[in-house]
Amino acid sequence: MLKNVLTSPLFSSTAKRCCSNEVRKWPQIIFSGIQPTGTLHLGNYFGAVDKWKQLIHSSNGDVILSIVDLHAITLPQDPKSLHSSILHMTASLVACGIDPEKCILFQQSKVPQHALLGWVLGTLTTMTRLYHFPQYKEKSATLKDIPLGLFTYPVLQAADILLYKSTQVPIGGDQVQHLHLAQHLVHTFNNKYGVTFPIPEYIVEVESGAARIRSLREPEKKMSKSHADPKSRIEITDTPEQILSKIKKAVTDFTSSVQYDAENRPGVSNLIDMHALAVGRTRNEIVDEAVGLDTGKYKLRVADAVIEKLSPIRSEFTRLLDSKDYLVNVLADGSAKAETIASRTWNEVKMRIGLESAQKVL
Amino acid sequence: MLKNVLTSPLFSSTAKRCCSNEVRKWPQIIFSGIQPTGTLHLGNYFGAVDKWKQLIHSSNGDVILSIVDLHAITLPQDPKSLHSSILHMTASLVACGIDPEKCILFQQSKVPQHALLGWVLGTLTTMTRLYHFPQYKEKSATLKDIPLGLFTYPVLQAADILLYKSTQVPIGGDQVQHLHLAQHLVHTFNNKYGVTFPIPEYIVEVESGAARIRSLREPEKKMSKSHADPKSRIEITDTPEQILSKIKKAVTDFTSSVQYDAENRPGVSNLIDMHALAVGRTRNEIVDEAVGLDTGKYKLRVADAVIEKLSPIRSEFTRLLDSKDYLVNVLADGSAKAETIASRTWNEVKMRIGLESAQKVL
Repeated sequence: MLKNVLTSPLFSSTAKRCCSNEVRKWPQIIFSGIQPTGTLHLGNYFGAVDKWKQLIHSSNGDVILSIVDLHAITLPQDPKSLHSSILHMTASLVACGIDPEKCILFQQSKVPQHALLGWVLGTLTTMTRLYHFPQYKEKSATLKDIPLGLFTYPVLQAADILLYKSTQVPIGGDQVQHLHLAQHLVHTFNNKYGVTFPIPEYIVEVESGAARIRSLREPEKKMSKSHADPKSRIEITDTPEQILSKIKKAVTDFTSSVQYDAENRPGVSNLIDMHALAVGRTRNEIVDEAVGLDTGKYKLRVADAVIEKLSPIRSEFTRLLDSKDYLVNVLADGSAKAETIASRTWNEVKMRIGLESAQKVL
Repeated sequence: MLKNVLTSPLFSSTAKRCCSNEVRKWPQIIFSGIQPTGTLHLGNYFGAVDKWKQLIHSSNGDVILSIVDLHAITLPQDPKSLHSSILHMTASLVACGIDPEKCILFQQSKVPQHALLGWVLGTLTTMTRLYHFPQYKEKSATLKDIPLGLFTYPVLQAADILLYKSTQVPIGGDQVQHLHLAQHLVHTFNNKYGVTFPIPEYIVEVESGAARIRSLREPEKKMSKSHADPKSRIEITDTPEQILSKIKKAVTDFTSSVQYDAENRPGVSNLIDMHALAVGRTRNEIVDEAVGLDTGKYKLRVADAVIEKLSPIRSEFTRLLDSKDYLVNVLADGSAKAETIASRTWNEVKMRIGLESAQKVL
């Protein structure tokens, strides 16, 4: 089914790449991070997780996925919930089909070189560059006292990427500027200390109804983990009853026919996209099959498809949550693998910048 | 001789302390850091190193001294020189009598928890607080592009201190505001996550001619590692000829008698202080013995005293520099000891903030 999705018109030619110079010299390493907070929803599943599964499938085991808990704490977190969230996110990813044997799935704070390289890169980053991040401006506009972490986290993101000498980074469209910082820091570091890092390319999905599932309540916005109304999203752990109820209440419009028109009829178009992705078929096939149905009846069909898609994921998630030892071990094993690579890079960085002797024998 | 210095009027009641609350519950840990760049001079020796030796002597082996290489890179460094500087500083400290068996002498970048805790504390620090540091304002005023490290290093300093649950921190007067940040972060962390850190007291020497040796060229300023003119300072590795030449050329005034008057006759008063500290006697004794000498002849006497004081240090320094393996081992051993404490604290921090489970068995 994944393969169908991959070859469907929804996914073809949606990947944008940049800066292909130098990359050919380096082994392919794909890095991505995900915040541990919140529960994965359908938008995450089709926008990110499914993409990672494809990359894991098509690469040679060089996909590195980080649960970025050091980023999570740039906003206040309840300690008990945070640790549960880390285990929940691990369970969610594994339940969605991210196989920890076929990639490196790890917890960022378990690999200390992220913070170390973050510090080093911070000495090469100017204040001006960080002020210009739209996300900083946006977040800081609503805060009286801005925590330093909100200002500096793009530097830690750059360290996350560079630490594994990553060549490709699948990101959302709102992260492009952050990737540019990472690319800039590679240039700066390589020019100053000798070529150490490849320039990471980004792989960004073009914003389309398919790659970016939208809110069930406000279909002009993307589906979001942080939206106040849980009815705006379908979480991968929702029960069949919850899924049915949320889809029944999904905002559509006053036209009853089922037709795709993302601009003028975002609500029903979003349902068509969810449906198409859930069953691995094209929009046109889905619309053709829905001829004669009104949106009310069509919603029941969408709900059935989503329930069928999520049912095995939910039961696997539930099973995994009962095996916390297993989840703890997944993170410990993944973090040990990540640290093997990270410490090699960090040792090289230390020699490059003079924290260690460049000569092996003094 | 050290004891004489300690009990001399030059040193009595010069220690200022603050915030003695809570400290009694915590074992005494004294932390201090020194930049690896530049060579130790007489001002460092009498102002800092001698103080550390006294603290090591009077404490129970709970003095932790960090060669703060992660701070050094907040300004551009040549990689080759930086690593030499780290070994030179180690040799200098050991040659001055800092016994690595009786304290923990280590290299900051070898203990990754500094950067990790620095990141966590950064999420608890506001931008506003960092803008107000006079040192940031001063340094950034002369730079077109301000590196992030210049802005954030007080947070890393706080991490340096908190990581060892330090109760006392000997600092220069210009570091008081930085220590206030560390104290503030202890309050913030303890209030938010439960009592984890003691509030570090600072021990700051009152500015006096004795505790603060002044420049030989501009005696109204303190002796400085970074002053452009090497004749302004006596480095602990200077040859007898260099010491004699620098002291002969030391700026004094048009009065020839040898009398102590720090305000109106800073040059000759500075020589008296250096002399008194070098031989471990009081200013009055020194001045009494110099009756009848003019400043020109007195300078020769001061030079003799300083040469005698530094001669064994210089020869030990030279000997140590020939044993680089020994220096590398000193730092490796010290850093392993430091990391034992640091990782204990970091594990506790991780549980407090929710990066790890607070329950030992899940």
